[in-house]
Amino acid sequence: MPALRPIDFYFDFSSPYGYFLSEKISTLAGRYGRTVTWRPVLQFAVLRGLNLPWPMENPVKRDYLLVDFERSARFLGIDYRLPPHFPALTQHAARAFYLLQSHAPGMEVCFAQLVMRSYWREGRDISDINVIAELVTQIIDCLGASAEVSEQLKTDVARAYLQDAIAGAIERRAFGSPFIIIDGEPFFGVDRLPQIEARLAQGSAA
Amino acid sequence: MPALRPIDFYFDFSSPYGYFLSEKISTLAGRYGRTVTWRPVLQFAVLRGLNLPWPMENPVKRDYLLVDFERSARFLGIDYRLPPHFPALTQHAARAFYLLQSHAPGMEVCFAQLVMRSYWREGRDISDINVIAELVTQIIDCLGASAEVSEQLKTDVARAYLQDAIAGAIERRAFGSPFIIIDGEPFFGVDRLPQIEARLAQGSAA
Repeated sequence: MPALRPIDFYFDFSSPYGYFLSEKISTLAGRYGRTVTWRPVLQFAVLRGLNLPWPMENPVKRDYLLVDFERSARFLGIDYRLPPHFPALTQHAARAFYLLQSHAPGMEVCFAQLVMRSYWREGRDISDINVIAELVTQIIDCLGASAEVSEQLKTDVARAYLQDAIAGAIERRAFGSPFIIIDGEPFFGVDRLPQIEARLAQGSAA
Repeated sequence: MPALRPIDFYFDFSSPYGYFLSEKISTLAGRYGRTVTWRPVLQFAVLRGLNLPWPMENPVKRDYLLVDFERSARFLGIDYRLPPHFPALTQHAARAFYLLQSHAPGMEVCFAQLVMRSYWREGRDISDINVIAELVTQIIDCLGASAEVSEQLKTDVARAYLQDAIAGAIERRAFGSPFIIIDGEPFFGVDRLPQIEARLAQGSAA
């Protein structure tokens, strides 16, 4: 039997539904013999590339979503508090993720979870490059001390990693956060968890 | 113990997710001692009133939704086929609903279900006033023969019922289909069914 393909998981660190799914997807995928390829992006850039509005732009929808974030967290049993800095700019976090992936493959997922929890549980300001550099050094020191990490996050290499990820999301039409792709089939939103599980239970597509 | 308040169910006959919820909500509400107030509207008019785009306007989102309609129907165990006339104009269906409600209270829900199934299972063109008139006469003949029903659907009275419903949806910010309100708490989308059930299980709000 050929190995099952990894699941693609597109998200923005500043998306609560992306955070909720990040707390569930690895365990769920593992139960069905799959791994997860985490792909942080900047949601606003992907949406702009696909000519779609940001969901919280409209005040009516924004008010609803703020209610729904809380309720969905409670329903899913996830620790959540709306951070004081919301939404956050996540380019530093996403660049750090891809830098870690190239220097210390495997550690980037631990880092992503640390960023998510720092933001969504502790309310830290992940827009701040110094906060991100500190979180990187908590995970691993291969990128150097905190100040050096900050410098690396501004390099063309770091920028290019994130730009490629965004271009990939646009090409694959991953228009939201979270956006999951299983053997080519797209699933948008944490509310698709039961359908994602049903799809995983089927194994590989015929 | 005071009686529990009815649930408000806003929907457009031309919304597949509205159809899916229409097949579930009455039974679910009944299990928790609630009734459902069905409120068909024209989704495009409500969205325009709230300055929101129609979800299927963007081709990327449209392609995804067409996949998701099928998959969600299968997941929920609902008979569904994308109708040849999609989306349909639903002002005749919605006006007929409110006319029936005033002439034969209680029959309007049977009518709504008949319209939904005629459209989503049999692919009939519910934009056509003659189709709607025929469906009305299938339910009840108090509005007269089919030709007379068609005339009544064009009256100011019929128009006013629907306009009031749309204005109410805008005022209550019921920005999608389906949109459920339980004791003032809003739920958008058929994917909120598990959260709706959890809310109903709590009884009335504290």
